Amino acid sequence: MPSFSEKLEAAIRIKKTPALVGLDPRYDMLPDGLKHSGCSCCSENHHHGNYLNPETIATAFGQFCYRVIDIVAPLVPAVKPQIAFFEQYGSMGLFALENVIHYAQQKGLLVILDGKRNDIGSTAAAYADGLIGAKSSIWGGDALTVSPYLGDDSLEPFAQTAKDRDAGIFVLVKTSNKGGSMLQDLIANGKPIYQHVAEYVESLNVSDASANGYGNIGAVVGATWAEQLTELRAVMPHTWFLVPGYGSQGGSAKDVAGAFDANGLGAIVNNSRGIIFAYKTGEFAGKYDCWEDAVLAATKAMIIRLAEDTPAGKL
Amino acid sequence: MPSFSEKLEAAIRIKKTPALVGLDPRYDMLPDGLKHSGCSCCSENHHHGNYLNPETIATAFGQFCYRVIDIVAPLVPAVKPQIAFFEQYGSMGLFALENVIHYAQQKGLLVILDGKRNDIGSTAAAYADGLIGAKSSIWGGDALTVSPYLGDDSLEPFAQTAKDRDAGIFVLVKTSNKGGSMLQDLIANGKPIYQHVAEYVESLNVSDASANGYGNIGAVVGATWAEQLTELRAVMPHTWFLVPGYGSQGGSAKDVAGAFDANGLGAIVNNSRGIIFAYKTGEFAGKYDCWEDAVLAATKAMIIRLAEDTPAGKL
Repeated sequence: MPSFSEKLEAAIRIKKTPALVGLDPRYDMLPDGLKHSGCSCCSENHHHGNYLNPETIATAFGQFCYRVIDIVAPLVPAVKPQIAFFEQYGSMGLFALENVIHYAQQKGLLVILDGKRNDIGSTAAAYADGLIGAKSSIWGGDALTVSPYLGDDSLEPFAQTAKDRDAGIFVLVKTSNKGGSMLQDLIANGKPIYQHVAEYVESLNVSDASANGYGNIGAVVGATWAEQLTELRAVMPHTWFLVPGYGSQGGSAKDVAGAFDANGLGAIVNNSRGIIFAYKTGEFAGKYDCWEDAVLAATKAMIIRLAEDTPAGKL
Repeated sequence: MPSFSEKLEAAIRIKKTPALVGLDPRYDMLPDGLKHSGCSCCSENHHHGNYLNPETIATAFGQFCYRVIDIVAPLVPAVKPQIAFFEQYGSMGLFALENVIHYAQQKGLLVILDGKRNDIGSTAAAYADGLIGAKSSIWGGDALTVSPYLGDDSLEPFAQTAKDRDAGIFVLVKTSNKGGSMLQDLIANGKPIYQHVAEYVESLNVSDASANGYGNIGAVVGATWAEQLTELRAVMPHTWFLVPGYGSQGGSAKDVAGAFDANGLGAIVNNSRGIIFAYKTGEFAGKYDCWEDAVLAATKAMIIRLAEDTPAGKL
């Protein structure tokens, strides 16, 4: 069986782009046709008491994500569902997520679960066991994002499970938000905290890289930090980057150019709101008769820009 | 409505103990009577293909947790379900968790969800919205554990939601595992990273403390670090501590004494496996005819030791 690193490379080469579509459903941003049109008890906004009816929301999230997947599956290598937006609606929301994961994989997409999970060793093992492994875990993620604050013995169970199951993880190194600097940029032993994490992650890949040169333990590095992307590409030559923050958060294709190696491999670049809610926000808002056409246009535009302004054009 | 800090104080004073019971169900550790006794397709170990049948496991987890709650509810102020062990079995496992949370609250317990969640601001807001607020969120947690690697603007949405909903959070400061030292003990600007987090958390409470002197933004500090507990108690006089690592992980009542203020307030001490699986592991293993009696004995022993060896004896 190919490793996660090999599957990711293959998917990128087939689609000829490192563009990744983030599935971050928000009920108030859904197209009108997918929102519940009203019921006998609550007219149109579905507030039952203080919160929304989770079953209604979960159903709409599923329908919305299926349609997004139908549009982007021929174009991109992977999708990244953000677990928070499903978890927000309880076990019903998460049942919808299970179905979205399987639907995306049936359409040939890799699924990177964005959960930023972690805990101490034996509990980390439970998260890894449940979440990663396309055919060998209940959730079935091809990869999962993981937080590093708990240190090496919390990351090891994820790394081991990833290896055993041909899956991957992406460890938070330098996050796209401004406040990430609070801890990540503190200097210890002459280098920032994020670089300590970077060197540890790289060390896990050095002896365990695929023929493409990359291992299965990736790093999350925000598109909003162009300089650090270039710096970290040099520090982590065997490590895939998952680059969030493109589009709505301000990162451009030029900003993420440093994330790639000379052959255009080594990184996947995520866009969530800028694609799935393109009908409502950003440069494509209001330009199309149906929301699906805006999703298509935004996806194609991102693919073209990454090809023009980064080494991914060589794919 | 009382704040989380006030509710926690009241619960501790009513039960006269800061003992917290962790609900960390693991299928292989469940008493035989709660395991499925076999089915037509797979005899006794429930492997369907490569993994366990999630519905069977989830049902057993619910039954097990209800019985633990029945036993400990008259004795302790709160329980701490570890989300990972429910998430390990998919949305079925999480459906069981929803029921466990509500059952515990019906029995008068506060529920601290251990999820170590976090993400960038707008996604952090979704986690907070879904998970905290006993009557105003879908999951209904009275509090949630949160990871700090993403910095201040990722913690603020949790702090705001906690304030708005009379709920709480506990931010990871110094975790109980050995590997936690990898990042948390690095020295930046003359002090360890965990102290940077500690000072930020304390700053959120200073201007917003209840009459009892404590705010709603707690800190997780492991029982395995007796010296740091004392040091952090001084650094964080307005911050509740959630202290994991008692019992199975090696922390004793004497080790956690420094977590309390002079009146015996300021901390809750968690024990998971040492209580819920007392029939099978640790000093009470094999001493009782039924597993429930071992849970009761382990809970009472912990309460007595905390009263004898810490300021909590003054409650």
